[in-house]
Amino acid sequence: MPEPIRRLCKVRFEPSGLKTEVPRSSTLLDAARLAGVYLSSLCGGDGYCGKCRLVVDEGEVESAPTTLLSPQELRSGVVLACQGLVLSDVVVTVPLSHRLDTGRILLDSDAHRFSELPAKDMGEGGFPYEPLVQKHYLEMAAPSEQDQLADHERLYMAIRQHVHAPIMQTGYRILQSLPGILQQSAYKVTAVVAERGGVREVVEVEPGDTSRRNYAVAVDVGTTTVVAHLVDLASGATLGSEATYNSQMHFGEDYIRRIIYAEQHHAFDEMQRRIVGDVNELIQALAERQGIELGWITAVVCSGNTAMIHFLLNLDPVRIRRSPYVPTAAWVPPIRAAEAGIRVNKRALLYTLPAVGAYVGSDIVAGVLATRLYEMPTLRLLIDIGTNGEVILGSREWMVCASSSAGPAFEGSGVRHGMRAAPGAIERLSITPQGEIRYKTVGGEPPRGLCGSGLLDALASLLEAGYIDRSGRFVARGDPRLADGPDGPQFTLVGSSDGRGPIVITQADVSNLIRSKAGVYAAIDALLAATNTQVGQLDAIYVAGGFGNYLDVRQAITIGMLPDVPVERIHFVGNSSIAGAKMALMSRAALGKAEEIAGRMTYFDLMTHPGYMDAFIRANFLPHTDLSLFPSVRTQAAGSAAAGEGRT
Amino acid sequence: MPEPIRRLCKVRFEPSGLKTEVPRSSTLLDAARLAGVYLSSLCGGDGYCGKCRLVVDEGEVESAPTTLLSPQELRSGVVLACQGLVLSDVVVTVPLSHRLDTGRILLDSDAHRFSELPAKDMGEGGFPYEPLVQKHYLEMAAPSEQDQLADHERLYMAIRQHVHAPIMQTGYRILQSLPGILQQSAYKVTAVVAERGGVREVVEVEPGDTSRRNYAVAVDVGTTTVVAHLVDLASGATLGSEATYNSQMHFGEDYIRRIIYAEQHHAFDEMQRRIVGDVNELIQALAERQGIELGWITAVVCSGNTAMIHFLLNLDPVRIRRSPYVPTAAWVPPIRAAEAGIRVNKRALLYTLPAVGAYVGSDIVAGVLATRLYEMPTLRLLIDIGTNGEVILGSREWMVCASSSAGPAFEGSGVRHGMRAAPGAIERLSITPQGEIRYKTVGGEPPRGLCGSGLLDALASLLEAGYIDRSGRFVARGDPRLADGPDGPQFTLVGSSDGRGPIVITQADVSNLIRSKAGVYAAIDALLAATNTQVGQLDAIYVAGGFGNYLDVRQAITIGMLPDVPVERIHFVGNSSIAGAKMALMSRAALGKAEEIAGRMTYFDLMTHPGYMDAFIRANFLPHTDLSLFPSVRTQAAGSAAAGEGRT
Repeated sequence: MPEPIRRLCKVRFEPSGLKTEVPRSSTLLDAARLAGVYLSSLCGGDGYCGKCRLVVDEGEVESAPTTLLSPQELRSGVVLACQGLVLSDVVVTVPLSHRLDTGRILLDSDAHRFSELPAKDMGEGGFPYEPLVQKHYLEMAAPSEQDQLADHERLYMAIRQHVHAPIMQTGYRILQSLPGILQQSAYKVTAVVAERGGVREVVEVEPGDTSRRNYAVAVDVGTTTVVAHLVDLASGATLGSEATYNSQMHFGEDYIRRIIYAEQHHAFDEMQRRIVGDVNELIQALAERQGIELGWITAVVCSGNTAMIHFLLNLDPVRIRRSPYVPTAAWVPPIRAAEAGIRVNKRALLYTLPAVGAYVGSDIVAGVLATRLYEMPTLRLLIDIGTNGEVILGSREWMVCASSSAGPAFEGSGVRHGMRAAPGAIERLSITPQGEIRYKTVGGEPPRGLCGSGLLDALASLLEAGYIDRSGRFVARGDPRLADGPDGPQFTLVGSSDGRGPIVITQADVSNLIRSKAGVYAAIDALLAATNTQVGQLDAIYVAGGFGNYLDVRQAITIGMLPDVPVERIHFVGNSSIAGAKMALMSRAALGKAEEIAGRMTYFDLMTHPGYMDAFIRANFLPHTDLSLFPSVRTQAAGSAAAGEGRT
Repeated sequence: MPEPIRRLCKVRFEPSGLKTEVPRSSTLLDAARLAGVYLSSLCGGDGYCGKCRLVVDEGEVESAPTTLLSPQELRSGVVLACQGLVLSDVVVTVPLSHRLDTGRILLDSDAHRFSELPAKDMGEGGFPYEPLVQKHYLEMAAPSEQDQLADHERLYMAIRQHVHAPIMQTGYRILQSLPGILQQSAYKVTAVVAERGGVREVVEVEPGDTSRRNYAVAVDVGTTTVVAHLVDLASGATLGSEATYNSQMHFGEDYIRRIIYAEQHHAFDEMQRRIVGDVNELIQALAERQGIELGWITAVVCSGNTAMIHFLLNLDPVRIRRSPYVPTAAWVPPIRAAEAGIRVNKRALLYTLPAVGAYVGSDIVAGVLATRLYEMPTLRLLIDIGTNGEVILGSREWMVCASSSAGPAFEGSGVRHGMRAAPGAIERLSITPQGEIRYKTVGGEPPRGLCGSGLLDALASLLEAGYIDRSGRFVARGDPRLADGPDGPQFTLVGSSDGRGPIVITQADVSNLIRSKAGVYAAIDALLAATNTQVGQLDAIYVAGGFGNYLDVRQAITIGMLPDVPVERIHFVGNSSIAGAKMALMSRAALGKAEEIAGRMTYFDLMTHPGYMDAFIRANFLPHTDLSLFPSVRTQAAGSAAAGEGRT
């Protein structure tokens, strides 16, 4: 008797050993999602990005023919997970390329740039220190027959001795539990008072003095990376920071893909669960390391692009990608964090900074807030390079902003050995005149890959040393480090050691990085042109993004990502999204300012701007097709090219 | 083999046939509560008021000896329900005295006095017509690539074209459903906007134009009677009114008893269920009669004494009866009605008017609002006679208030044939010089009992006709209508007919009524004395309370309930609590004024006032021990007494 056809097939993923069961004919990508195994996927499962490679070790997998896999790969059992249908129990191996950092939570050293922004600096910066959620210890007189003020009014009166609060609100449950808490504590309580859109809400009343135990988390909800800082609201000090990859990456590397995926699969709830899960993991890790109970965290402040904020709150994002390109809300009122599934104090509030619109999110508003661009007397530029590259040009008079699809290359995603700025990430790299590669890793640990600043350095160094030409093509120079790899030519930056594979940069990586930088540059170009601004008028350029601790601005000019201005005018400001979120967290005046900023910024739609695509194509060179725009690079490049030619 | 002892016993109540099962040795009072059978009980089950009489028809009931039952009653199987322990399956009969009106919902004709307070009168009265919850029909332009304002901001902008709303809030669920509703309705929606402590909250967004379907309910939550009015917020018209007895009366007739009961039996939840159940019944009846869906009711506004409001919201009321006599909240912020269990639109708000303190509730503040006492240039008095008798003295300069335990006699409770002002209630009564009794009933129906105004008339008429003396004792005059009843002497006002028993007034009833009026008068006396006010300075006396449609103010002076001022200065204002609640409902400015009024009123504690008990004892005569205070009555009484003596 033939064995009946199995309905469910077991799938095991090596080397993690994670397992799942799926109906026969499910894709390996779906199985990976179920098992909680992260696989890179740029296209979200449509079978054309070729990122989701797996090796089938055992069992039967049926796969449609594809030109994305080489004959050698096919012989080795490589399949695309999104195209491979599971027909029996199978064992597959996930190549290392998928696994860099994923699932691990690591200290984001970069985040430390903004770690020490103590309370007093807030005041100096112009905003009074007045956190969105404050704990006030109140020693009230107990009522007596001579003083019969009701409990609720007594509480309000005591709070108003601490804060100016013309309009206050109290939740029903708080009111119900109030008499018990007041009597139990002899009218010595701590009131947790939160800003809520111009109103002060009494979110909790705790017996005794708990005012020293007041914590909050600021979160930068990025498309690729999610960063969280834990702040002690009693002092204003940042106690720690954590970062992780956004686990929505299972569903596509940019948010447009994810919106399409969610629409097609009715997966908005799943999208929210993912990102909320990431935020919860970060908060949990921060709290554990600092020995803080989740119940002491009374506020969460988020910034992020508009799509990510919509996913986080499960607000309909579909018209962000589809005409007329409107969000559900650019400004989202504070909600109870628990309503979104975030595990902190059950009555804590979740704030999101205001956005400008569908394509300029609250992360950018946060950046403008943090850099104070909005109050500058002279023109300045803020460039935030993440999965998208947003550019803001302006001063206290006016501000315009634009968004380009930079892609996540400088976040270490979509690049063979790209990674976040985690320990072991190469964050600085140079090539000596002798062709020797020098590098420095985060934490001084053995090299594991390259973070954004390392990739930028590598690109600039390879150009300067003549290993790539101005179009980004590798130039054969007889160097054995430049050889053919599975995807074409690749340059080995760090050889194998300690059982680790080599760290390489491939032709595809170089092209990705150039496209990213070209998108950013073209956006700058378009904004300058549209506002009749000359590069020379720019008093300062602020560069934000998760590059790492460090960004060699000279090299950023060398590759043509930034306009050629004197380097002292360029300031790397790190993660300005979380810096702005923290400013709002620590000062309700700053949050109010963020709303004002969002209202003042004019969005400039690059897609409908006729000059943008031209500008982009012209920027797809190193540094640019028009070298006259980069006088300082022209001199250098000429020298390097000469040197290179000399050595060939 | 002996039958094992039954653990559960069945109890059936006749004539309703309502049944329940209780553990053996439960009291009949508990069984009645379980079965939903209403029994009068003044003492709340302590066995000394003797009100909860039942007749045991079948089965075994064990009862402790009591002096409250006559030998004849004991022989007839009468027991006190609170003292009777169920030992087997039993059948009991509930005497008619318990059953007047209970469980039935009847049109409260009295409430009609304030039925026609149309919108325009509000404006004339000084408050703009601006209901607490408004529906605004908004025809917005749909977003386009030229107009990319987010949905939420678009909605706010449209709302702000209708109302001045500097601070607005939107619930998370509303925000989540917003894009779907806007698109489905082509951006033509109705926004339900509610006042919430100085903030405007978007409580609901409905597709299309539903602005004509906006209803609200005002509720006077009385200790004895609960009255509700249904208001059409689109026009300001009152569509109907309903009243019912407060079913918490199972647990005691005054709220102090109920607090004690709830404390002893951990029955605060039960108390809330009862009163919320009453409110829900009234709303259901109003909605059904008007053909209105509960979902169209967007606001409920309640006034009531402080204990009732605490029960309604399940806020801890125990310190209302116990030193230091403080409420949990005198001003309760609006909550979602559903949170309290009230069945209207699931996002409707429940508002309560502000109270002065533990003993002067929001019903009194509502009365001051409705009568405009707070803005009068001359001194006036407001007297609200319900289960408690509150007295407010003041003008636009100052206001003082006091509360006396009048008891529910004038609400028809605690009086043998007392009843609410429902059809069949005698609301006017007089005795002709020939001794003939003339009366008028509510609705012209056959007489069933006496409501407050009828009781007051009866008391005054019996005094004037000489059937009772100034101390309230019946005077034997050879009239067969005065005879001994089960509780002592009683006077038959209406004889048996149509199978109905006679309507009598007993010696105990008279004593109760005199105590009630004496409590009120003594409170007036104390306030006048404490403020050095002479009776002659009173420009007006407003009398509020559920007497019925009618109050003979002359008779109220005759019995000494009201001071002896010219009758044209006395104004019967009916249920001023619900009138004020409706004013607040229809104008947020009126609600704001109520808060100001509550803050301005000074509470005067009669219990600690040395003169009050003396004043009360002196007022325990008809009209008073000191006849010089009632010159107009003295003349009358002398005449009547003479006439009476002439006839004896």
